[in-house]
Amino acid sequence: MTTNRLAKLRKQFDHAEVDAILISHPSNRFYLSNFTGSAGYLLITQKDALLATDSRYFEQVKQQSPHFILFEMKGRTEEWLPQLIGPQGIHRLGFESPNITYSFYKEMSTILEKTLPELKLIPLENIVEKLRSVKEPGELANIQRAAEIGDKAFEAVTKKLKAGTTELQLAWELEKYMREHGSQSMPFEVIVGAGPNSALPHHGPAEYPIAAGVPIVIDMGARFNGYSSDLTRTICIGKPDDTFIKIYDVVRRAQEAAIEGIHAGMNGVQADGLARNIINSTGYADMFGHGLGHGVGLSVHDFAPRLSYLAPPEPIEDGMVFSIEPGIYLPGWGGVRIEDLAMMENGKVKLLSHARKWHER
Amino acid sequence: MTTNRLAKLRKQFDHAEVDAILISHPSNRFYLSNFTGSAGYLLITQKDALLATDSRYFEQVKQQSPHFILFEMKGRTEEWLPQLIGPQGIHRLGFESPNITYSFYKEMSTILEKTLPELKLIPLENIVEKLRSVKEPGELANIQRAAEIGDKAFEAVTKKLKAGTTELQLAWELEKYMREHGSQSMPFEVIVGAGPNSALPHHGPAEYPIAAGVPIVIDMGARFNGYSSDLTRTICIGKPDDTFIKIYDVVRRAQEAAIEGIHAGMNGVQADGLARNIINSTGYADMFGHGLGHGVGLSVHDFAPRLSYLAPPEPIEDGMVFSIEPGIYLPGWGGVRIEDLAMMENGKVKLLSHARKWHER
Repeated sequence: MTTNRLAKLRKQFDHAEVDAILISHPSNRFYLSNFTGSAGYLLITQKDALLATDSRYFEQVKQQSPHFILFEMKGRTEEWLPQLIGPQGIHRLGFESPNITYSFYKEMSTILEKTLPELKLIPLENIVEKLRSVKEPGELANIQRAAEIGDKAFEAVTKKLKAGTTELQLAWELEKYMREHGSQSMPFEVIVGAGPNSALPHHGPAEYPIAAGVPIVIDMGARFNGYSSDLTRTICIGKPDDTFIKIYDVVRRAQEAAIEGIHAGMNGVQADGLARNIINSTGYADMFGHGLGHGVGLSVHDFAPRLSYLAPPEPIEDGMVFSIEPGIYLPGWGGVRIEDLAMMENGKVKLLSHARKWHER
Repeated sequence: MTTNRLAKLRKQFDHAEVDAILISHPSNRFYLSNFTGSAGYLLITQKDALLATDSRYFEQVKQQSPHFILFEMKGRTEEWLPQLIGPQGIHRLGFESPNITYSFYKEMSTILEKTLPELKLIPLENIVEKLRSVKEPGELANIQRAAEIGDKAFEAVTKKLKAGTTELQLAWELEKYMREHGSQSMPFEVIVGAGPNSALPHHGPAEYPIAAGVPIVIDMGARFNGYSSDLTRTICIGKPDDTFIKIYDVVRRAQEAAIEGIHAGMNGVQADGLARNIINSTGYADMFGHGLGHGVGLSVHDFAPRLSYLAPPEPIEDGMVFSIEPGIYLPGWGGVRIEDLAMMENGKVKLLSHARKWHER
């Protein structure tokens, strides 16, 4: 499987004008090699695939990445880097410009200028992330499984929810359920925001008791075989106030318009606009401060697609997985966000998450 | 508290030859501002302290960082960056060179060259990380509390451990105990390696049943008020083989020599040598492939001190917190690592972790 991915990456070499690529991002490293260690680099040439890491992981590489040549990183960067790069006869080495620190870039370029003066370093943007945006069937199955774990946890835990439970307790019950029903560690910490806290889209749950009648925003994801899901529901214990009913209805309609309207070939700005137009037309324009959605995969915020008024005009394609999550936030009162995980299939949106929504209760 | 830290940072401006610093690293951002959001920058001038973030966090900033001026990041980088930097009258702007990606550096420098041609960007290395290395009393109390949670979890869970439990089950029981006894989410995923897996110092726990008689390496940390602990024990169910007894004894002696011998003013290479000499003299020189220890604080791998043959010759000072963790790893058989969390107090090592060791049972 990763062999196919290497072949696809090598096909990009000509266009990127490189004859090798150094991979530094953990998820990209895993995507291309299956290696789950926390440190290391891949060096991919047209002919070879090397995995450079330190002694903590030598054995692990042999088990997880038998199709890679293990390069043993020992000592300081100036000792191992020229030994890794030098023998490959590389002229133009691509590197992952958004996934490398400025200081490592300076260190690397200083060392390579001295030891391999003919070599050119070529910054590349998101070359592996773009490959990752269209999911293979095995990846889709993992994401689907992660979404199912999230759906079940939401159902099981929220149906027992009582006023007085703190945000932290609810977040932990959701996490514990997911972890004990097949999820790996969380792709992001469960968000629970109640009452005014729900106006903070990324509120860290606190020792704050959840009252009846207020909006409760729950944003959660599971992880299966490395792949994430992402789900948000806004609920209420007992009877909500009029503001909730009014805002919830706008967000629900915005989300439904996006789910029905997004189709293959549409770009991220257009997709975002389907939901945003509805929110804007109801006078809440300034209260929807984030984009409509983001790619989901090995990372809960995959690079592509991006559904936002700030997104590049790239088309959403079949096999892409993304969130659809409009929200309205009123400082002091609270917020409503509804998020589903979706994939593009046969040109249309197919939902991967199915947890019941407040209005379906 | 964070006001003192800002004052200490500003005292570095002259030496660093800057009149302002842009902070991008999440832990440094939190250390200086108390802001826990996942995105944003601090801009610290001699006079002002600004926190730039996006609309998800505007409300949160007002709550967590009232002593900072909120700058609302809106739109693309080229829209908000000159508005953030421009009005401050900065001539030399320091940035965190190890905490900024090469591509953000290029974007930032391109934008600022156009809009503020007089401004110079100055790469700085670990300026906040160095401040963070000597802990304040409140920080020490948080770390001590995290260490206690880890100690208790280790005792409570391992005393019930039976052969046949999988590595994953044991790791989850340890995590669950910590989370339900005061720990925030894990600073790193609990490591459990049994038998041959214990030869992989950073083994991700697997569906692998733990047998009697083999080494079991458990490496775990709790997190309290943002501060981490770090603890490793190597244990055995039932009677171990001769290799275990022999290697365990070497690692134990190496660790004890370091705990007794490390004193304030000693550097990280010397500290590492105290343990490494013992391991080398028993013929296992190549089997201790990592350093003796690392700083611990807001990050489980704090920048300083670093106890390693590769460390810069910086002295270990009173108030620093670090791990002491020698190990020997024999591929195919397994490994032994013993790690305690320590602080430097009155010139000597004081242990912060107290979980019982295998030889004390």
